[in-house]
Amino acid sequence: MELPDGALSVIPVRGIPSVQPGDDLASLIMTAAPWLRDHDILVVTSKIVSKAEGALVDVPESGSEREEARESVLRSQTARVVATRGHTRIVQTHHGFVMANAGIDASNVDRAQLVLLPKDPDASARALRAELLARGLDVAIVVSDTAGRPWRNGLTDVALGCAGISPLRDHRGETDPYGNELHITQMSIVDELAAAAELVKGKIDQVPVAVVRGLITSTTDEEPGVVPTLVRDAGSDLFSLGTAEAMELGRTLL
Amino acid sequence: MELPDGALSVIPVRGIPSVQPGDDLASLIMTAAPWLRDHDILVVTSKIVSKAEGALVDVPESGSEREEARESVLRSQTARVVATRGHTRIVQTHHGFVMANAGIDASNVDRAQLVLLPKDPDASARALRAELLARGLDVAIVVSDTAGRPWRNGLTDVALGCAGISPLRDHRGETDPYGNELHITQMSIVDELAAAAELVKGKIDQVPVAVVRGLITSTTDEEPGVVPTLVRDAGSDLFSLGTAEAMELGRTLL
Repeated sequence: MELPDGALSVIPVRGIPSVQPGDDLASLIMTAAPWLRDHDILVVTSKIVSKAEGALVDVPESGSEREEARESVLRSQTARVVATRGHTRIVQTHHGFVMANAGIDASNVDRAQLVLLPKDPDASARALRAELLARGLDVAIVVSDTAGRPWRNGLTDVALGCAGISPLRDHRGETDPYGNELHITQMSIVDELAAAAELVKGKIDQVPVAVVRGLITSTTDEEPGVVPTLVRDAGSDLFSLGTAEAMELGRTLL
Repeated sequence: MELPDGALSVIPVRGIPSVQPGDDLASLIMTAAPWLRDHDILVVTSKIVSKAEGALVDVPESGSEREEARESVLRSQTARVVATRGHTRIVQTHHGFVMANAGIDASNVDRAQLVLLPKDPDASARALRAELLARGLDVAIVVSDTAGRPWRNGLTDVALGCAGISPLRDHRGETDPYGNELHITQMSIVDELAAAAELVKGKIDQVPVAVVRGLITSTTDEEPGVVPTLVRDAGSDLFSLGTAEAMELGRTLL
């Protein structure tokens, strides 16, 4: 059946081998997905970006030495602690992301290593876009990771970096059919793209890239990326500290 | 081109007329989308569910009377106030959702009315699924709305209710290719579906329903829905109060 106008496809990219430091992601992706087209959006799991860039740390495989090493790595990735519960720390990273354990991950990697977030995911996205463009393919890139949310159980994927696409779709100033002006509706398109892509990725099916086809008809290099656009600074955030931490601060500031 | 195995489609449903209280959503949707199939997932904007169910309140069109009426409606929808800034109040609704202004909306509706959230969005989803099933169509339903998030600019759509589909995809107990057990990865599929659907909906293009095709191969009525599954109770949430409110509480509890 021909799909109705405006439909988009979310397509898993299978067959990407386990990524090693120094690997050329652009080649791995183009080999696995020879069907890629201009104006496709590639949603790339940050883990393979980190691995290719060598954003890995060696840690002992077990015991208290492993815990100490993890602790030290977490400190190195933390700009400030937002909230703590048990072994979990919600921190703001140096990029500005608020994530459990600074996004440091021990899954889908050798037990003797931890995967850090890419140092500059927007730059990673721009570099991958440029590599693909040099091979004749004009696509947008979203670098994604899995994250928790306050108030809701379950995780979703969100965007850490992007290139070739605007992170926000801005409806401000538009008027609805009843004549009401839409005041504050800026949609976080790249977060929605990351979420859509995760639906076809799965966690251990080795599908680190998915393609969203049909959403955009041109790319742009005018956009500053995810970090400058989507990261809200703590000063203007109503939830810059966990409730317990803020209550404690209230007590001590008296 | 034949899409690779595992691809899904996100398809806008156009041509649904402006919904009025008492309207039969199942009929409106089936008329607008005669191409629907078993195991499609229909992501339905909560606003048309609310309108069909008559979850509307009359308010004055302008002036201080309008503001007072809005205030009174907001109080009626609020279980507790989470955080306040200027005219915006982040509250927990009686359902358990934490949302700005309790999800009350003045867009895409007559200026003399406000749209409330559906009273029980899971029940709304089950009812719509049953109506469609009675007409021979076995689909899953996600009722969605637009919401903000702490720490990130821009909004995304999330799920308020569902039927026929499990809200979470559970990876706990699975083992990655390196032998690491995945501990806490429960993905919020229905939130990711809501986000994916929003990409093709737009805010004023009158596309209140989108279909995700290709993700599920069977439906289920064993699942309790979004509210029992995804809503985290305040007691186990690290961000149950805004930072300023928690600091104030810390001061006064001394």
